[in-house]
Amino acid sequence: MSATAVLGRFVAGSRWDDLPAPLRHEGKRSLLNSIGCAMGVARSEPVEIAVRTLMPLSGSDRVTVIGRNERLDILGAAFVNAIGANLLDYDDTHLRTVIHPAAPVLPAVLALAEQRNLSGAAALHAFILGMEVACRIGNAVSPEHYARGWHITSTCGIFGAAAASAKLLGLNAEQTAHAIGIASSQSAGTVENLPSAGKNVSVGNAARNGLFAALLAEQGYTAAPAALEGTLGWARAMGDVPVVEEIVGELGTRWEAGKNTYKPYPAGIVMHAVVDACLALKRDHGLAAADIAEVVVSGEQLLLDRGDRIVTGERDSRVSIHHCAAVAFLFEAAGLREFEDACVHNPDVAAFRGKVVARLDAGSPRGAATATVRLHDGRSFSATVLHAKGSSEQPLSDQEIEAKVRDSAGHGGFSGDVDAIIAAAWGVTEMPGIGSLMQAVTAR
Amino acid sequence: MSATAVLGRFVAGSRWDDLPAPLRHEGKRSLLNSIGCAMGVARSEPVEIAVRTLMPLSGSDRVTVIGRNERLDILGAAFVNAIGANLLDYDDTHLRTVIHPAAPVLPAVLALAEQRNLSGAAALHAFILGMEVACRIGNAVSPEHYARGWHITSTCGIFGAAAASAKLLGLNAEQTAHAIGIASSQSAGTVENLPSAGKNVSVGNAARNGLFAALLAEQGYTAAPAALEGTLGWARAMGDVPVVEEIVGELGTRWEAGKNTYKPYPAGIVMHAVVDACLALKRDHGLAAADIAEVVVSGEQLLLDRGDRIVTGERDSRVSIHHCAAVAFLFEAAGLREFEDACVHNPDVAAFRGKVVARLDAGSPRGAATATVRLHDGRSFSATVLHAKGSSEQPLSDQEIEAKVRDSAGHGGFSGDVDAIIAAAWGVTEMPGIGSLMQAVTAR
Repeated sequence: MSATAVLGRFVAGSRWDDLPAPLRHEGKRSLLNSIGCAMGVARSEPVEIAVRTLMPLSGSDRVTVIGRNERLDILGAAFVNAIGANLLDYDDTHLRTVIHPAAPVLPAVLALAEQRNLSGAAALHAFILGMEVACRIGNAVSPEHYARGWHITSTCGIFGAAAASAKLLGLNAEQTAHAIGIASSQSAGTVENLPSAGKNVSVGNAARNGLFAALLAEQGYTAAPAALEGTLGWARAMGDVPVVEEIVGELGTRWEAGKNTYKPYPAGIVMHAVVDACLALKRDHGLAAADIAEVVVSGEQLLLDRGDRIVTGERDSRVSIHHCAAVAFLFEAAGLREFEDACVHNPDVAAFRGKVVARLDAGSPRGAATATVRLHDGRSFSATVLHAKGSSEQPLSDQEIEAKVRDSAGHGGFSGDVDAIIAAAWGVTEMPGIGSLMQAVTAR
Repeated sequence: MSATAVLGRFVAGSRWDDLPAPLRHEGKRSLLNSIGCAMGVARSEPVEIAVRTLMPLSGSDRVTVIGRNERLDILGAAFVNAIGANLLDYDDTHLRTVIHPAAPVLPAVLALAEQRNLSGAAALHAFILGMEVACRIGNAVSPEHYARGWHITSTCGIFGAAAASAKLLGLNAEQTAHAIGIASSQSAGTVENLPSAGKNVSVGNAARNGLFAALLAEQGYTAAPAALEGTLGWARAMGDVPVVEEIVGELGTRWEAGKNTYKPYPAGIVMHAVVDACLALKRDHGLAAADIAEVVVSGEQLLLDRGDRIVTGERDSRVSIHHCAAVAFLFEAAGLREFEDACVHNPDVAAFRGKVVARLDAGSPRGAATATVRLHDGRSFSATVLHAKGSSEQPLSDQEIEAKVRDSAGHGGFSGDVDAIIAAAWGVTEMPGIGSLMQAVTAR
C-alpha cells in the first residue's frame, strides 16, 4: 500500500470522536493564532496586491477574506488568507520540520466550510487532519528538504490543504489519496524567495492548489500510486529518499498536529532563541546598547542559512540574526513594531546590526542559540537558550495567544469585535456553521 | 546581474523586428501544431473535468477554450488549453531538453492576447520569447533535472509562460525578471505522475501560474534577485547547479525556440525512434507479427526510465516501449487510433507487448533506439534509428503539420472549419487582433 493510499484511508476514515481532547484544543489554539496573524496584515500591501489581482478573476460564489470586506471565490480566498496567515512570520510552527502548518491548511478549510455551510467541528477536524498530513510528510524528508532550499511550509503544506479539503468534500479513501498525489505535482516554493513576495505566492498556492487538488480529485482526476515515494516521484525529485514510516507509522496514535507551537515574536522561528538570548543578556546585566562593541550569535547551520544576511527591509528583518539581536538590545522587545520598516530603517538599528556577527556552532541543537556580547570596557557575557519562549518546553498559554490576537488585530487596524473572534474560536466545535466565525473576522 | 535580470532585460527589450524570419515561421508552426493537439482532445474526459471544476470558479471576463464553446477566465482557460495541448503526447519538442514548449506557453499567450485584444504579431512574438526562456532554463539544468524526476515541460514551461505574459502585459525589464522569479516559487510537476492526471495538473499549472506570476509582478510583487541560480534557489533546490551561461549566453543570436520539432506519432518523444526502428524492420523484412518471438529495444537511460513500464491504459501506452513496438509490428502504424483504449486493451496488442524487452544501451545517443527482432524460425534482424521522423534532421513539413491538425480535429470531433484555422495560423502576423484566430478554434 502506497503512502498516499495509507493517508487517504486514514483521512477518509477518521471520525471526530477519534481525536483526543488535548489535540482538539491544540487545533483551536492553532486556528485562533492563525486568524490573528491574518488580521494583523489584512490591509498590508502584499494582501492588497493579491486581492487586487484576483478580484477580476474571481467566480461569483464567494467567501470571506479575513479582516476585509471584499470576498473572493474559494481558490482566491484560500490564496489571500494563506498569505495573510504567514506574512508576519508570527504563525505556528511544527518544530521538528519548521513547517508553519496552519497557514497553508486553514484557509482551504475555512473557504470550503464557509461555501458549503459546514459545521465548526467538521472544519476543525479537517484542519487537524490536514496539519497532521503536512507534518508527517515533512518529517519524512527533514531536515534535508529545507536545507536544500525548499520552503517546507509551502512544499508540504499543500498536502495538508489537499487532505483537509478532501475530508470536507467527503471524498473516499481512494479519492483522498489522489488529491494528495495531485498535490505532489503542484508542490513548490524556495527558501531563496523567502525575503520576497515569491514567498507569499508559494504559501498562498499551497492553500489554493491543495484545495484545487481535492476539487479535481472529486471530479475524477487521479495521481500515480507512488506519487510521494516513487523512484521518479515527489520526494526523490526534490532530492530526498523519504522515510515512509514517518508518514504512515502510528497514524491516529502519534499526532504531529498536537506538537504545534506558537510564536511570541513575529520572526522566523529559528530566530526566537536569538531574541531570548539577547533579551536575557540585556536584562541580566543591565546593558546599554552604546556600551556594546560586538555581539556574536552562534547556532546550527539552519540558523545561519536562514539568518546571516544583509537586511534591506521588513521582510528580511524577520529572518535576520543581526536585526533580532539589535532590537533586543536596543528596545528590549521584538514585537510587531520592531519589524516594521520604520524600525528596520532606523539608523541606530542599522548601526547596531553592523555590530552583530553570526557564527556556526555545528553542535548547537535545533532551535537553540548562544549570544556572546563584548563590551567596550572589555567585559564579555554569554547566554545560551536551548528552548525559546513558545517552544514545546515553554509553550504560550491560551491567554498569551489571545493577547497576540488582540495585538495583531490592533496592528492591522481591524474594525470588528476581537472578543467575538476569540470567543468564536474557543467555541468553534459548538458552531452549526462556520459562517458565524467568518462573519466575525469580516471587516465592518 | 542575475539570470532573471538578464532574461527580464532581454524579453522586455525585444522587438518584433529583431526576430529572424525563419524563427517567426517556426513560431507559426509551433502555434498551429499546438492548437491542433488541443482540438484533438477538446471533448476528452480530462478536459471535461478541468472545465467542470473551473467553471464555477471562473471570473466573468472570459476567453476561449480551444475546441469548445464554454469560456473561462484567463487563468482557467490557460489551464485547460495547456492540458489539451499536451494530453495526446502529440505536441512539439525541444529535443535537447525534451521540453514541449508550446503547451505551457501558448495558452497563457492566447488567453491574455484575446482578453486584451492584442495583435497576432504581438502574440507570436511573446510566444516565441516564452519558448526561448523555457528552453534556455531547461538547458541550464539538463539532463539531470528530468532524470531526477522533474517533468521539465511543467517545471521549466512555467518560466516561459511568465516571460511571455510579461511581454504581452508590457512589463519593464525589472518587472519581467520578477515575474520569472515568482514563477520559480510555483515550478512543479513530477515524472512519476506522468501516466496520471497529475501530469495534466502540472502542465496546466505551468500556463496558469506562469500567467499568474506576470499578473502579480504587474501589480508589484517581487522575487529574490537570484531566484533561479541562488544557493537556496530554484535550480539547486531541484538538485542542480545550473549552467547559467546556458540561460544568458548569446541571447538574441542563438535561438532555442527555433529548434522546435513536431511529432509524427502521439507518443512520448523518446519513443519515436522505437516506432521508426520497428516500422523499418516490419517493412524492410515483410515481417508478420505472428512470426515474431521477441523484440529487444535498446536505448539510453532516459528511454528506459520513461518507457520500460507495464501498460494499463491510454496514458501510459504513449510512453511505453512495449506498446509502441507492438503497434508498429501489428498495424504498421502509430497514429491517434493506435493509442486509444480500444487498441491498448486489444488482446493481440497486449500479447505482443509481452514479447517486447527493453534493454539499456548506455552509449546510445539521446533520441536514438535500436530494435532487434528474433523470429520463431531463428532468424534475427536489427535496425537502429539515430534521428527519428520529426527530429531536427528529419523535420515535418508544413504540409505534414497541417495534416496532423486535420487528423486531430477529426479525432476530437471538431465541428468548425479546420481550413480557417490553418489559414489563420499562417496569417497570424497580419491579424490586428488574435480574437479572429480564437473565434476560428471555438466549437460551433
